[in-house]
Amino acid sequence: MKNKLIGVDIGGTNIKIGILTKDGKIIHKTSIPTYSIVGDAYMRPLHPPEKPQDIVKRLCDAVKNLCYKNKIKLSEIVKIGIGCPGPLNSKKGIIYSTPNLFGWENFPLKKCIERHLKIPTVVNNDANSATYGEYWLGAGKGYSTVVCFTLGTGIGGGIILNGKLFKGIDDSAGHFGHTTIVPDGPKCGCGNKGCLEALASAPNMVKRAISKIKNGTRTKLIVLSNGNLNTITAKMIHIAAIQGDKFAKELLAETGRYLGIAVANVLNILNPEIVIFSGGMIEAGDLLFKHIRKEAMKRALPQPAKRVKIVPAKLGNNAGIIGAAGLALVGDNI
Amino acid sequence: MKNKLIGVDIGGTNIKIGILTKDGKIIHKTSIPTYSIVGDAYMRPLHPPEKPQDIVKRLCDAVKNLCYKNKIKLSEIVKIGIGCPGPLNSKKGIIYSTPNLFGWENFPLKKCIERHLKIPTVVNNDANSATYGEYWLGAGKGYSTVVCFTLGTGIGGGIILNGKLFKGIDDSAGHFGHTTIVPDGPKCGCGNKGCLEALASAPNMVKRAISKIKNGTRTKLIVLSNGNLNTITAKMIHIAAIQGDKFAKELLAETGRYLGIAVANVLNILNPEIVIFSGGMIEAGDLLFKHIRKEAMKRALPQPAKRVKIVPAKLGNNAGIIGAAGLALVGDNI
Repeated sequence: MKNKLIGVDIGGTNIKIGILTKDGKIIHKTSIPTYSIVGDAYMRPLHPPEKPQDIVKRLCDAVKNLCYKNKIKLSEIVKIGIGCPGPLNSKKGIIYSTPNLFGWENFPLKKCIERHLKIPTVVNNDANSATYGEYWLGAGKGYSTVVCFTLGTGIGGGIILNGKLFKGIDDSAGHFGHTTIVPDGPKCGCGNKGCLEALASAPNMVKRAISKIKNGTRTKLIVLSNGNLNTITAKMIHIAAIQGDKFAKELLAETGRYLGIAVANVLNILNPEIVIFSGGMIEAGDLLFKHIRKEAMKRALPQPAKRVKIVPAKLGNNAGIIGAAGLALVGDNI
Repeated sequence: MKNKLIGVDIGGTNIKIGILTKDGKIIHKTSIPTYSIVGDAYMRPLHPPEKPQDIVKRLCDAVKNLCYKNKIKLSEIVKIGIGCPGPLNSKKGIIYSTPNLFGWENFPLKKCIERHLKIPTVVNNDANSATYGEYWLGAGKGYSTVVCFTLGTGIGGGIILNGKLFKGIDDSAGHFGHTTIVPDGPKCGCGNKGCLEALASAPNMVKRAISKIKNGTRTKLIVLSNGNLNTITAKMIHIAAIQGDKFAKELLAETGRYLGIAVANVLNILNPEIVIFSGGMIEAGDLLFKHIRKEAMKRALPQPAKRVKIVPAKLGNNAGIIGAAGLALVGDNI
């Protein structure tokens, strides 16, 4: 019986694969390394990068193995949904380029997978997939106008309007991470100055911390990192903040305020019902969210401010798989 | 034959009324004073403010007269579309409050007009009406994803997505004027700091000019205003800039850069095909647009930057009438 979906979440480090029921329940799951990343956060090569064709071959083998192991026939799979870093063309299933994946320029991902597996495949941006997952079965369930900020190495996002993913005219909508927050702020990877990502992403929060510590700020982070500042992480900042470290608390507060400005702008532009934050940083809980909410409420107009809920995501690492599968299921009805 | 529309554009100073064909051509037009404004830009009372009920009575009389004079029967009118300052509820046709209109709190505008004229009436936000007008028959004709910035006393805006007006969940989408551009910037009328409106609206550009002149800046504006700085207008700044006045040119350039930041944010969030600017300030032409475009291109991501056109509106003062009528015609199919 044709009643299952495959959801795939392609990341710089690994590829998560799931078999799902048509109502989005993950029944089996696996993960393979990507082997395509140019380097880690410090640009150290991790593995000889593979060509995208070879990665897709491994991906398809992993799908086949996962099905075989669980006694599911490929013929039971209705569709495959892929979430992939972009920019990309979701209609054609072509990846234009991805800063973190080596050699993926103009790569026909959809065609390549369909050739291997003979199953209709739908490709979408990774942040859009995660957003759709949260809308379909996560924190956004039951709402029709949903905005999601994805806090990873970078900051991405997605927009659901009237129950449909809004992609923009070139699959480039929802790039909240590259909205300008401080016009003369720090340089961003995109070339612009003062982007939200340059101010509030986990690596950039860590960078700010290290720079201030080097300038003499006293904080528990020095002890927690055994004096090796390069090992400081967002998680470590969270731990220090829980232990009452003022500097760490202020780092999270400042990051929350930057995110709050971006949220206020989105509220005044889109007037959504709910804004969801996903990614590792949301573990900081109210140490972060209190400041996001406060700044957003201060800056948004009364109507959109009164309406909106600002909440953490619910699906964790599964959002990408679930959303990719969900978007494959609804297909062009978007 | 039921084949005509009425479009109404309610402003703080006057109310514009038009009779249109169903394809949006204005065949007759009139205008009446609003008599509801609290005061002029300097808060001097202009006229004893009328109650909204009395204004609507005059509005309906003006509609009847316009029809009568032109030998059009009320029974030929399919629908009446109204553009009105908000916040408002477009489904119910209720105005929640309007900062510039006296006593309009929770006023049931739609019901009140329908009681007088017995013609189905549709109420929308004024900026949304102007946006829809430009989309339907102006600079946005032929595009499906359109953003419009309305540069008046304040800065408003509207969003057309896939050929439909996007209003947000409480009719509050498209408030580009209240997105934060400089977090610690000047105080805005809305209570927030550093809003686009506080930096780039015509009155605020004039305010900046006056403050700098008082601090000793030399400029032709002093002569053009006969030394009475309070008479400086955005138009006067434009004239000085055309005459080569460096200060005036830089005022427009600075205003353009602020607008450009807001445009870049909208491009990265919505990835539209076209961004339209309407309102008196667009007469400055390339003295303004060159800087809007340059700043937007610098800050937007490559895909949305490459795609978008940034252009002046085409319908001038008629956009509101045309758009209000158009939105009445499409009704809830939005």
